[in-house]
Amino acid sequence: MSRSIDSFEISRRRFGALAGAAGLSMGLGSRLVSPAFAEAVADSAEIIQGKVPGLLVHNAKLGVMETPLTLLRKYAHTPKEILFCRFHFPHEGNAAWYATTAAPDRKDWTIRVDGLVQRPRDVTLADLEKMGQEKRVSVIQCAGNGRSYYAARQKVAGGQWKNGGMGNVKWEGVPLRPFLDELKMVPSSEATWLTAEGWDQPATPEGTDFAKSYHLDDPALDHAIIALKMNGEPIPACHGGPVRLIIPGYYGNMNVKLLSGLLFAAAQSPSAYQSLGYRMPIMPVEPGKFGANDYTLSNSVPTYGHTIKSVIFSPLPDDNPKAGAVEITGVAFNDGVAPITSVEVSADGGKSWQNAEIETPESPWAWHHWSAKASLAKGAAVLMSRATDALGRTQPIDGLARWNPRGYEWNGVERLELTVA
Amino acid sequence: MSRSIDSFEISRRRFGALAGAAGLSMGLGSRLVSPAFAEAVADSAEIIQGKVPGLLVHNAKLGVMETPLTLLRKYAHTPKEILFCRFHFPHEGNAAWYATTAAPDRKDWTIRVDGLVQRPRDVTLADLEKMGQEKRVSVIQCAGNGRSYYAARQKVAGGQWKNGGMGNVKWEGVPLRPFLDELKMVPSSEATWLTAEGWDQPATPEGTDFAKSYHLDDPALDHAIIALKMNGEPIPACHGGPVRLIIPGYYGNMNVKLLSGLLFAAAQSPSAYQSLGYRMPIMPVEPGKFGANDYTLSNSVPTYGHTIKSVIFSPLPDDNPKAGAVEITGVAFNDGVAPITSVEVSADGGKSWQNAEIETPESPWAWHHWSAKASLAKGAAVLMSRATDALGRTQPIDGLARWNPRGYEWNGVERLELTVA
Repeated sequence: MSRSIDSFEISRRRFGALAGAAGLSMGLGSRLVSPAFAEAVADSAEIIQGKVPGLLVHNAKLGVMETPLTLLRKYAHTPKEILFCRFHFPHEGNAAWYATTAAPDRKDWTIRVDGLVQRPRDVTLADLEKMGQEKRVSVIQCAGNGRSYYAARQKVAGGQWKNGGMGNVKWEGVPLRPFLDELKMVPSSEATWLTAEGWDQPATPEGTDFAKSYHLDDPALDHAIIALKMNGEPIPACHGGPVRLIIPGYYGNMNVKLLSGLLFAAAQSPSAYQSLGYRMPIMPVEPGKFGANDYTLSNSVPTYGHTIKSVIFSPLPDDNPKAGAVEITGVAFNDGVAPITSVEVSADGGKSWQNAEIETPESPWAWHHWSAKASLAKGAAVLMSRATDALGRTQPIDGLARWNPRGYEWNGVERLELTVA
Repeated sequence: MSRSIDSFEISRRRFGALAGAAGLSMGLGSRLVSPAFAEAVADSAEIIQGKVPGLLVHNAKLGVMETPLTLLRKYAHTPKEILFCRFHFPHEGNAAWYATTAAPDRKDWTIRVDGLVQRPRDVTLADLEKMGQEKRVSVIQCAGNGRSYYAARQKVAGGQWKNGGMGNVKWEGVPLRPFLDELKMVPSSEATWLTAEGWDQPATPEGTDFAKSYHLDDPALDHAIIALKMNGEPIPACHGGPVRLIIPGYYGNMNVKLLSGLLFAAAQSPSAYQSLGYRMPIMPVEPGKFGANDYTLSNSVPTYGHTIKSVIFSPLPDDNPKAGAVEITGVAFNDGVAPITSVEVSADGGKSWQNAEIETPESPWAWHHWSAKASLAKGAAVLMSRATDALGRTQPIDGLARWNPRGYEWNGVERLELTVA
């Protein structure tokens, strides 16, 4: 009795087709970095409305850009005008509305909470706004931040991020676990995963939607919020507004933008962004022996929490430092699971180290500002910093030991070359 | 960092709260049959707008009613005005619109296709209307049809259905499997169940939403359609319009009304309508030893396909049959998996049997009309009919052997007592 359906057009998510969008998807591997894009790089302010000019653009078509540290260090909370951006799908057609720092006007935004539950629910933005809100100051960081440094071993495809694919942001929203509890959906005992789905869609039929799955018993979810505000304002479209899942301490991709669905499931999402992308090999791998498509659910894990990291904010080469006494400052952060106990600083390329002073952070997941006094001699200087936490987790001296074919989770000891005048 | 959310109101599905609806739910067991309802039984035409008067009302509050056989036998395809009805939730408040045989005006109806897939999709009614449509003539029958006959062993709670909780209906819609294939959602290999979700919701927080799960490799899904029409017209609201999943040959509850979601999952829905209700014990059970809440996923199975059944349509007691030659007619049907090979008829209470003639049915799932010539003597007569299919499946002489505490799947040999004038 069955026969084929005539070919038909399916409504794209809620708001119609991404008409005319170019063919880009996670599944297409090396096509992610197309030479055609590199030819016509526009300024950051032209690519995303509301961004300042001069951000470092990695991919104009996808709106991928990072913040120069000279800008980043100016603000306690990174403003929307300078915060790094990472789109997964081209922002054309009906998706173009989110290539802006303005808050999207989406009164009809709905999150479908569904899956292995007795009572699936639709929750609107208006519903969320009525619920109790909590704040989370936390670092948001692209899992690819620092990818360019892996090139010292072998260059990795993708945006060649330096250190500016991160920011310290104040989020505000509805705490996830009480939210799910209050919905009284009665999940099945077989529901062991929670999948967050993003509204945005790939431009091609071969592409896979963006989704991330979390173990339902993951303690990180205890702190997660369904965020409606960023730095006190509605979340800009380009940063995942109107609704973004924020899991403090987790890499950016785990903080699903344009949140449209939360699913209770007995297995994790087959989205390529869960099963193939944004994963780290469990064992160390060699360039040429383990490729970008060799990831499996068993030989790799998602990029969950931030590996411990420190970054030097001052002096930077643009500061044209002069010989003599200098204060070396920067930030450190980890996944928030254990306190950061020390930041060691070297002003002589690692020959000698001293402990920096660490300011009390705003939260376990926020930037930890640190500073150390040193003296610089005229000529070439190499500054270094290394953070360690109470679990003994620290930054590897040789970050290249963690080389991986998708270039994630760079956290090698920070090393900054300066010319001292 | 976590604290409780202030109490809040959640949007009911898509169209707001079921304000004021009475507390009824699957989970409340015996409260389903409340004496309060029995006191004020209105006529069928008052309970559901567009129904003819005189249908046999089992539950006015829930809009449960069946068709007298004297009406049912008049039509090749059972018209909406007389077709049996079975609501699960009180049709009050914002849900009251579906207590009508009118087609719901729901231009914004959307089916969410989601779960363990790479690309979840929203499909609108307009999308569905553009797709290729197929027809299915099939019996739709409440799993509780004939429940009253179990009372001869021990009465079972619930609507005391006679034989009229069924109809022969022409459905039309989009074939399910090609539909799912065309969406190119790329389900996970772990997705072994498909769950259909209904839009309607229980009135109380304790209630469970309506959902049914099917094995994804169930051959019955090969014939399933996402139905948009019933007997050539938009599906009436009270029969599950605007969109109802029709799985020909499956009991009514498996044909999810007001279809709002299709989920790929690694486990079946924890909805009480899947895990507790509409199930048959695997082994024969005894009254008093196995109760209505003793069902588990392992000791019982859902009421899938119609057990083979025949019903006598003529002569009925209301026909006041007279002694002499008579044509005994009726219908038979099963799950459509194997052809019905015989209908045996007895006019003497089972002492002697003859084979009826069976008309070629419109489809494997449609009513099979049959007829047999007999002679009746004045006085009491007992007519019987018994259908058998090519798999050797037949109606038990003693239907009470299949007694079960929720009173489903009655298919004892049909037995009709008459007084012949």
